[in-house]
Amino acid sequence: MQPTELPGNAQLHQAQQRIKPYVFRTPLLRNDWLNEWAGADLWFKCENLQRVGAFKPRGAFNAVLQLSDEEKQHGVGTHSSGNHAQALSLVAKTLGIKAHIVMPENSPTSKIAGVRELGGEITFCEPTVEAREKTLRELLVQTGATYIPPYDHMDIITGQSTAGLEIFEELPDVDSILVPLGGGGLLSGTALAAKYNKPNCKVYGAEPLNVNDGARSMKSGELCINPPGSVTMADGLRTNLGRLPFEVMKLLVHDVLTAREETIAMAMELIWQRLKLVVEPSGALALAVFHEHRDLFKGQRVALILSGGNVDWDAVPFLK
Amino acid sequence: MQPTELPGNAQLHQAQQRIKPYVFRTPLLRNDWLNEWAGADLWFKCENLQRVGAFKPRGAFNAVLQLSDEEKQHGVGTHSSGNHAQALSLVAKTLGIKAHIVMPENSPTSKIAGVRELGGEITFCEPTVEAREKTLRELLVQTGATYIPPYDHMDIITGQSTAGLEIFEELPDVDSILVPLGGGGLLSGTALAAKYNKPNCKVYGAEPLNVNDGARSMKSGELCINPPGSVTMADGLRTNLGRLPFEVMKLLVHDVLTAREETIAMAMELIWQRLKLVVEPSGALALAVFHEHRDLFKGQRVALILSGGNVDWDAVPFLK
Repeated sequence: MQPTELPGNAQLHQAQQRIKPYVFRTPLLRNDWLNEWAGADLWFKCENLQRVGAFKPRGAFNAVLQLSDEEKQHGVGTHSSGNHAQALSLVAKTLGIKAHIVMPENSPTSKIAGVRELGGEITFCEPTVEAREKTLRELLVQTGATYIPPYDHMDIITGQSTAGLEIFEELPDVDSILVPLGGGGLLSGTALAAKYNKPNCKVYGAEPLNVNDGARSMKSGELCINPPGSVTMADGLRTNLGRLPFEVMKLLVHDVLTAREETIAMAMELIWQRLKLVVEPSGALALAVFHEHRDLFKGQRVALILSGGNVDWDAVPFLK
Repeated sequence: MQPTELPGNAQLHQAQQRIKPYVFRTPLLRNDWLNEWAGADLWFKCENLQRVGAFKPRGAFNAVLQLSDEEKQHGVGTHSSGNHAQALSLVAKTLGIKAHIVMPENSPTSKIAGVRELGGEITFCEPTVEAREKTLRELLVQTGATYIPPYDHMDIITGQSTAGLEIFEELPDVDSILVPLGGGGLLSGTALAAKYNKPNCKVYGAEPLNVNDGARSMKSGELCINPPGSVTMADGLRTNLGRLPFEVMKLLVHDVLTAREETIAMAMELIWQRLKLVVEPSGALALAVFHEHRDLFKGQRVALILSGGNVDWDAVPFLK
């Protein structure tokens, strides 16, 4: 991808206007204790307080609102282990269309219930990438629904960029941003928002060490995948990096940093205990990575995106 | 008390200006799922996201900032089982003075740690009202510190009124407000803010049934106390209603409503699970009371104050 092929700032701001009636402007919070602990000025962008408890409606609304009326009439479909499925179900419910959702049968209970409550029609499949894709292909053929991918689509990426736009509006002198990295939609969107609105702000991906395909991809310049069976408590980030987000990241992301499982658990507990916010393990990655790499950020003003808060109580590591 | 003796709107707004550099303006959040569940338009004022994790710094800053330099030099003191102690410690630390805190020896661990981290000097006492008052009296004599009570003081009440002022600024068409009731500082402050800024908004106290001194006082017109040994999981509301807040409440509060322990636990879990906010049991009282009395609020726009979020994990009823 050439820099000239990237969406422009106008497109990001059009996305922001398009989705404005449908998403929350989430608060950007700070905390005395955490700042003292960090030796830096931390600002937390609370996408766990977004509708459906994660940033995902930003991209999903932006993509579906651009479909033709005829396309909308046939519904939308996706495969997702969680938050994107809830977001697409919310979009479909809001617009009065159908959402067909393929979910691996081992998805967290709270995320399955979330889709059901929003009227999404679930088809379960085996928890492999192949089974997800095959089941979805068949479903799309049967229904004529349009596939709305979780991250590997420029309308999704520009939709996710709006969280970053809000950060730069409220925190114009931010030095660095840490963004959880799974498929790469939120990270590449944030990097685009930074490119046009705060070009000297360093944008970092935050990834579990156990599923470090993003870090390896950035280092090698080639899209890497995680070995089958890789496990992390941060289930939302288990997915492989998408091709399109990776192309954007190569141009605009400063680095991808990783954190160990025990650091993720510790960061999650600090966010619950000190910030008084319920985040899922994936939502704690930015703080976990900050902690493992804190020398990089000493004395800086740092924004950390808390990407989501959908978690089953029995999956909370520090409550076991 | 006569209505003419109440502080005026100018005094409330002066308090707001006085404490503005020292407290957070907390967000007012809503949630799709909870609104559907409620059959009303609920707005949550997140004082659990306030500094020290509770609304208390509003009143404490307002009171201490009005002391003379000589008074400040001798420090401040109070007795408190929790959030007021942390708030006063924060004020003292911020202004470079000493905070002497008398705490019952059975105070929650997280609240003791919170005071220690903020540099408050703790003197433990037996968990009785008499022991708290005697220990504090001796301490004030020894140190010359000024007593900053948790609620029974007009400067505290006007400080707490600022949470309500923020609600009326952002939600001018609110129909009712539900406010957790312990000593009565937050409730009487909110009622004062409503009187001048939204006189037709009904202000309700929300109290655990097990410590319903407030509801009984309002009904009888006489200040009632809780029988010794009354227990509730909402430890922040266990205290008896203060005389001055009660005088304000008699003039301005529409009613005090109660909730059972199991409803408090359920409301607390809903706030964690749906709003993604960590609240302590006391912080869940407004939603618990809403649920037990929902016919009163059908179709209304209702503000609920989440008063605090300082809780030990092993004291969370739905995680046991």
